[in-house]
Amino acid sequence: MSAPVIEKPSLRAGAFGNATGLSCRECGHQVELGPHYACPECFGPLEIAYDFPAVTREEIESGPRNIWRYKALLPVPADIETSPNTEPGFTRLLKAHNLGAELGIDNLWVKDDSTNPTNSFKDRVVACALSAAREFGSKVFACPSTGNLANAVAAAGARAGIKTVVFIPSNLEQPKQVNSAIFTESLVAVDGNYDDVNKLASEIAGEEDGWAFVNVNVRPYYAEGSKTLGYEIAEQLGWRLPDQIVIPVASGSQLTKVHKAFQELIKLGLVEDKPYRVFGAQAEGCSPVSVAYKAGVDAIRPVKPDTIAKSLAIGNPADGIYVLDICRETGGAVEDVTDDEVRDGIVLLARTEGIFTETAGGTTVAVLKKLVKTGQLDTSLETVVINTGHGLKTLDAVSGRVGPVATIAPTYAAFAATSLA
Amino acid sequence: MSAPVIEKPSLRAGAFGNATGLSCRECGHQVELGPHYACPECFGPLEIAYDFPAVTREEIESGPRNIWRYKALLPVPADIETSPNTEPGFTRLLKAHNLGAELGIDNLWVKDDSTNPTNSFKDRVVACALSAAREFGSKVFACPSTGNLANAVAAAGARAGIKTVVFIPSNLEQPKQVNSAIFTESLVAVDGNYDDVNKLASEIAGEEDGWAFVNVNVRPYYAEGSKTLGYEIAEQLGWRLPDQIVIPVASGSQLTKVHKAFQELIKLGLVEDKPYRVFGAQAEGCSPVSVAYKAGVDAIRPVKPDTIAKSLAIGNPADGIYVLDICRETGGAVEDVTDDEVRDGIVLLARTEGIFTETAGGTTVAVLKKLVKTGQLDTSLETVVINTGHGLKTLDAVSGRVGPVATIAPTYAAFAATSLA
Repeated sequence: MSAPVIEKPSLRAGAFGNATGLSCRECGHQVELGPHYACPECFGPLEIAYDFPAVTREEIESGPRNIWRYKALLPVPADIETSPNTEPGFTRLLKAHNLGAELGIDNLWVKDDSTNPTNSFKDRVVACALSAAREFGSKVFACPSTGNLANAVAAAGARAGIKTVVFIPSNLEQPKQVNSAIFTESLVAVDGNYDDVNKLASEIAGEEDGWAFVNVNVRPYYAEGSKTLGYEIAEQLGWRLPDQIVIPVASGSQLTKVHKAFQELIKLGLVEDKPYRVFGAQAEGCSPVSVAYKAGVDAIRPVKPDTIAKSLAIGNPADGIYVLDICRETGGAVEDVTDDEVRDGIVLLARTEGIFTETAGGTTVAVLKKLVKTGQLDTSLETVVINTGHGLKTLDAVSGRVGPVATIAPTYAAFAATSLA
Repeated sequence: MSAPVIEKPSLRAGAFGNATGLSCRECGHQVELGPHYACPECFGPLEIAYDFPAVTREEIESGPRNIWRYKALLPVPADIETSPNTEPGFTRLLKAHNLGAELGIDNLWVKDDSTNPTNSFKDRVVACALSAAREFGSKVFACPSTGNLANAVAAAGARAGIKTVVFIPSNLEQPKQVNSAIFTESLVAVDGNYDDVNKLASEIAGEEDGWAFVNVNVRPYYAEGSKTLGYEIAEQLGWRLPDQIVIPVASGSQLTKVHKAFQELIKLGLVEDKPYRVFGAQAEGCSPVSVAYKAGVDAIRPVKPDTIAKSLAIGNPADGIYVLDICRETGGAVEDVTDDEVRDGIVLLARTEGIFTETAGGTTVAVLKKLVKTGQLDTSLETVVINTGHGLKTLDAVSGRVGPVATIAPTYAAFAATSLA
């Protein structure tokens, strides 16, 4: 093994389940399991490599009703469910009769991750990062964030009894601060924008011993958590892959991991091999991947985000190039929508399916609609759309758009005079 | 059958599953199934009567991962899961290691209903009310509410494709209005307080044909939904009843229904018969049941609510006397806490278990703490505490209490100068 800059932690046997090492996604260089994220040879991103045993549907179905039912396919120990964690996952997969009818899609499903413990898909990835932090003996569990990730890290750390430190921009709205500070004593406001906070986090990760920054030095473990979205969709469809899937793109990690999950299920013989098309959703105000897709190029040009879909506002998406590959190879597409379309998407999903999504979900629903309108999506095929978070966290996006239809005196006569009687 | 004032709707066979009729909780008078809630003989509350078949654990366990796994024990048809609904329930039962250690309780669990579709236990009762509204052929699904119930009704109606009309006080804070208006075109603001809105709802229920007000004329069906909390706790403990359970008291319906669920499970042989103690939790600013309990009297004296625990602020609780009976008979108690203790309870649950609860949950956790301190709860016995809703809906309660520990410049030097490095 090379990688001389990398310290070798002492790990207990089975600390990472069936994971065998870290593998560079660019050059294939192998590194031992540890708190590493960049290839020491080429600086490419490291990814978990596994040696999976035979896994049966029955084994999975007899597991807990959360992401740990898939523990054999994640970099976690076999006893993971006995360590206090938020027990995320196994969220609703709802048949979207009304939204399907509205958009003209025969067979549409919504995977609703807004009902996770802290109301976004981030609970999945953070649970895997927490397991890694435990196994590395980390003393602090940390992240830079402006929203969903901060909530998930602070809550998971509280429950696990590990010290958390969460870094946010100091100008963040107070409600968002409360939603993290409620869980941790150590919310740190940083005078700067999100990029400044992120940069500071990387510096601290480099300087301080024993700090596990979920999206920095334990990122390879963290990112694997998104695979569970793919596993669940397949299992909830009755161990079957959908024909088409629409996924929001921020860093692009979620989309690549759902695709990876589908591929793993095929290889393990848990679902039938079949073609499926993967679609990425972005907001126009931060659409570097969509722009590259439409231009037919491979290089992604970073942008300065300007959109209400803050949780998708990553101007230089780390996994953008992989998203392009997957969407092109599977016959999907990457599309983007305006902020007004995002707001319409939020209201549309709420009015048709009773799901209140955040701006990221509004983006995904609006992109779904646009894909139909532009003929890029086949409306006769079974389609899944992912809702990654909760509208209660982005109330401002729609507060000007919805409200009372009437204000009346508290009498039957006043009511009878409305059009509702 | 008497009850001449009651119209008899034509119902399809099996419309209400194993329910056989409505029975007066006061005089035992029987009424046929229909949209009725008050006994025509004595005006007592009507409750669903059943003739349960044999039900096995295996049948339940093979059902859907939501409340419909218990459909044989609810007033719903056998095909209920095929009608679009929000699919609530089967929420987390978390072993509360840290909270237990903090309070000195050996074996403590939190049943967390904040992860329901609209983030409160109301999704359970509304799902049962929706089924009744469907079977009665109701054309409008409605409620008066200031919070959780409005969200649940508006969302469930949207998903079911039935028209909803939701009545709220016109001075309700805008975020709470948005959280219902997002789902329905027909949010009606009423110039008056909640009592005025409630009274108007009853008038409309009496005047208009085909309106199902969930908590008025279909209340007997609605209320049964709370039984699922009891069923789930028993099943998630491994088909076993806890020794002690702490439940918030607003109308008192939830507490009586959890007790009813435990009794049904015993009668059906699904759990072993054993003693358990039921405790009720109120906020001091609206504690009519706790006051009666402590005074050792049976009569409940209505109060004018004045507490931050708005979702518990029912000054004249309909089921208060039944709560007194149950808590006394089982050897439990009813206790109350101040608003400051409620806020502390919210922070305590968040910091120990990573669950952000609303003021009602803060009340329940604070009462749990007080019950330990006053020696009313046996800390050596297995105890369950119910969290009924989400802190994102009552952010104001704690926004002055939690926040950043430090504000720093975006440099490692600035971080290193804090106590966190």
